Amino acid sequence: MVPFYGRHQAGIATPQQSNVMFASLDVTDASRDELRGLLRYWTGAAARMTRGVAAVEGGGRPTRPPWDTGEALGLGPSQLTVTFGVGPSLFTSDGVDRFGLGSQRPAALADLPRFSTDELDPSLSGGDLCIQACADDEQVAFHAVRELVRLGHGLVTVRWSQAAFLPRVEPGATPRNLLGFKDGTDNIRGDDRTALDRFVWAGAESPAWMRGGSYLVARRIEFLLDRWDGSSLQEQEATFGRRKVSGAPFGGRAEHDLIDLRAGGTDAIPANAHVRLAAPATNSSQRILRRPYSFVDRGAGSQLPAGLLFLAYQRDPRRQFVPIQRRLSASDALNEYIRHTGSAVFAVFPGVRRGQALGGTLLAGSA
Amino acid sequence: MVPFYGRHQAGIATPQQSNVMFASLDVTDASRDELRGLLRYWTGAAARMTRGVAAVEGGGRPTRPPWDTGEALGLGPSQLTVTFGVGPSLFTSDGVDRFGLGSQRPAALADLPRFSTDELDPSLSGGDLCIQACADDEQVAFHAVRELVRLGHGLVTVRWSQAAFLPRVEPGATPRNLLGFKDGTDNIRGDDRTALDRFVWAGAESPAWMRGGSYLVARRIEFLLDRWDGSSLQEQEATFGRRKVSGAPFGGRAEHDLIDLRAGGTDAIPANAHVRLAAPATNSSQRILRRPYSFVDRGAGSQLPAGLLFLAYQRDPRRQFVPIQRRLSASDALNEYIRHTGSAVFAVFPGVRRGQALGGTLLAGSA
Repeated sequence: MVPFYGRHQAGIATPQQSNVMFASLDVTDASRDELRGLLRYWTGAAARMTRGVAAVEGGGRPTRPPWDTGEALGLGPSQLTVTFGVGPSLFTSDGVDRFGLGSQRPAALADLPRFSTDELDPSLSGGDLCIQACADDEQVAFHAVRELVRLGHGLVTVRWSQAAFLPRVEPGATPRNLLGFKDGTDNIRGDDRTALDRFVWAGAESPAWMRGGSYLVARRIEFLLDRWDGSSLQEQEATFGRRKVSGAPFGGRAEHDLIDLRAGGTDAIPANAHVRLAAPATNSSQRILRRPYSFVDRGAGSQLPAGLLFLAYQRDPRRQFVPIQRRLSASDALNEYIRHTGSAVFAVFPGVRRGQALGGTLLAGSA
Repeated sequence: MVPFYGRHQAGIATPQQSNVMFASLDVTDASRDELRGLLRYWTGAAARMTRGVAAVEGGGRPTRPPWDTGEALGLGPSQLTVTFGVGPSLFTSDGVDRFGLGSQRPAALADLPRFSTDELDPSLSGGDLCIQACADDEQVAFHAVRELVRLGHGLVTVRWSQAAFLPRVEPGATPRNLLGFKDGTDNIRGDDRTALDRFVWAGAESPAWMRGGSYLVARRIEFLLDRWDGSSLQEQEATFGRRKVSGAPFGGRAEHDLIDLRAGGTDAIPANAHVRLAAPATNSSQRILRRPYSFVDRGAGSQLPAGLLFLAYQRDPRRQFVPIQRRLSASDALNEYIRHTGSAVFAVFPGVRRGQALGGTLLAGSA
């Protein structure tokens, strides 16, 4: 099991599990006090579920709904992590400061700009709150979100949700995405405290309630598989700037070989290759902690609908995700094969100690 | 790995893996000869993929699309099984005998009748062909279907598809569905040859090309989770006729205890309980081999869309699934909490020996 309590929430720098159930929620009818109560309730329920026990303590009466929906009974902790955040619309929505929190909104929690390649579906974007449940069993991840939504009945509703997965690779190996490529090889490691402090954890520039938290950008990226599958191996490799089978960058022999952006001749990484445009060297040395999962949606039509739920944690999206995505959006060769159809940004709370509630500092006092 | 060749196709009586990718396809533009060629091609590709190697042999040229889409590279066989069948519409569609196969249509491959509770979406129902890929890795199952669809480019298109999963339980344990209940406890075992011959494998009553095959009924069953989660433990247990936590039938103490339909008093199984109506004793001793998987769809709205992809194999749906579903449809207490939104029936070919092609006997000769 992954410990729930700590300086940072689990599910950010902790190892990626095989499955995620991600839900964005809207607060439909709650006061600030009720919201604080819900987050306290959720904190306890999440801590319990990560230990592999029912979300709510106690037996329940047979004449009442069961105290736990039950589908995760007997499955154990399965490395469950449950991670909570709040979106820009919780602070200000249509100019209204709904909960008297407007002055506490972090500057880093800015609405994302529109990128030139965006084809966003509003019903798959945004949200007042988010829950990211990751586990090594899809049913355990689903159960966690379902229980929390149920506990918030009458206060919150699901705005959009996405289940996604990784292939079962050896620990440390980079999973392939559904385009068949290894991507995200050069990610920030969960034990690299220097990089985490520099690029992931909110510091003194964020309001007190966010210090030790992080900012999550969630993007739903659909893959145009038919088009991709019709492109040549040459085109595919030039699109990423990597070899398909080995995962090696152009000019390298193995996956983890250095990406040499200055190489010429046959080793040259094309100007619009994904690895070049996403590389820290191209982006003022900025890095983001990526936690991406593949998805396969129900299909009804002539496509197999599949893609990537791109989840990325960072200290300030205005200096990290936004400029990187502006660059990708302007010239990434991959754009021909993908569509960004969902987008959201959240301020993900710092961790808590036993007895504390997530969001307690933010929601303290009355509106 | 699970052997591909044999008297029966793998993926029917072989142990259930953790994931399924199910696709129903339509033949858009193919002659009988082309269809036979495609099935030969598919047979070889499926046999290769179940061994954990690329669908198509050979290296490919960099100026051509890769010989394999690549996302399953390095993942090994993962117990992959790939199972193929043909739907009624392949034989006759709008009164037209499309491939000169009309006279070979098995009587057992009848269109399913409309059941009183059906709320079918035509875009999630029917199909000329089906591919069921099961594996212990979602990416491996997805890859198999994607490769086969790609190999059929120009001849077939996907009509509907569904990825689904099971929780990771101990071997032999019954997985819980997303209503939190153990269901399907009394399934036909893969090593019970007597029951398989009696209830699952097509015999002399089927045309020669189907002997040793089976008939698959696929139903997409959505769960109304909000309504279910608002019902009391008592109601839930009475709906199934089982205890939620132990899985024991009313009157029993453990999951595998006998379902006593004649018990009275507090042990009585209600008249409209799911276990009573689905029990062989209620259905002229008929049984079906169930291979159900749970699904969680992308959500955009106030529900978490989830349910069951019910896959059931049998010797003759007219004497097995149809009367059972008529009974369930008329009075199953579960109907209040579920909706059947997709439906299809397929004749699933018998197995083949190395060198033979699936459907070879059916498609031999010219139209």
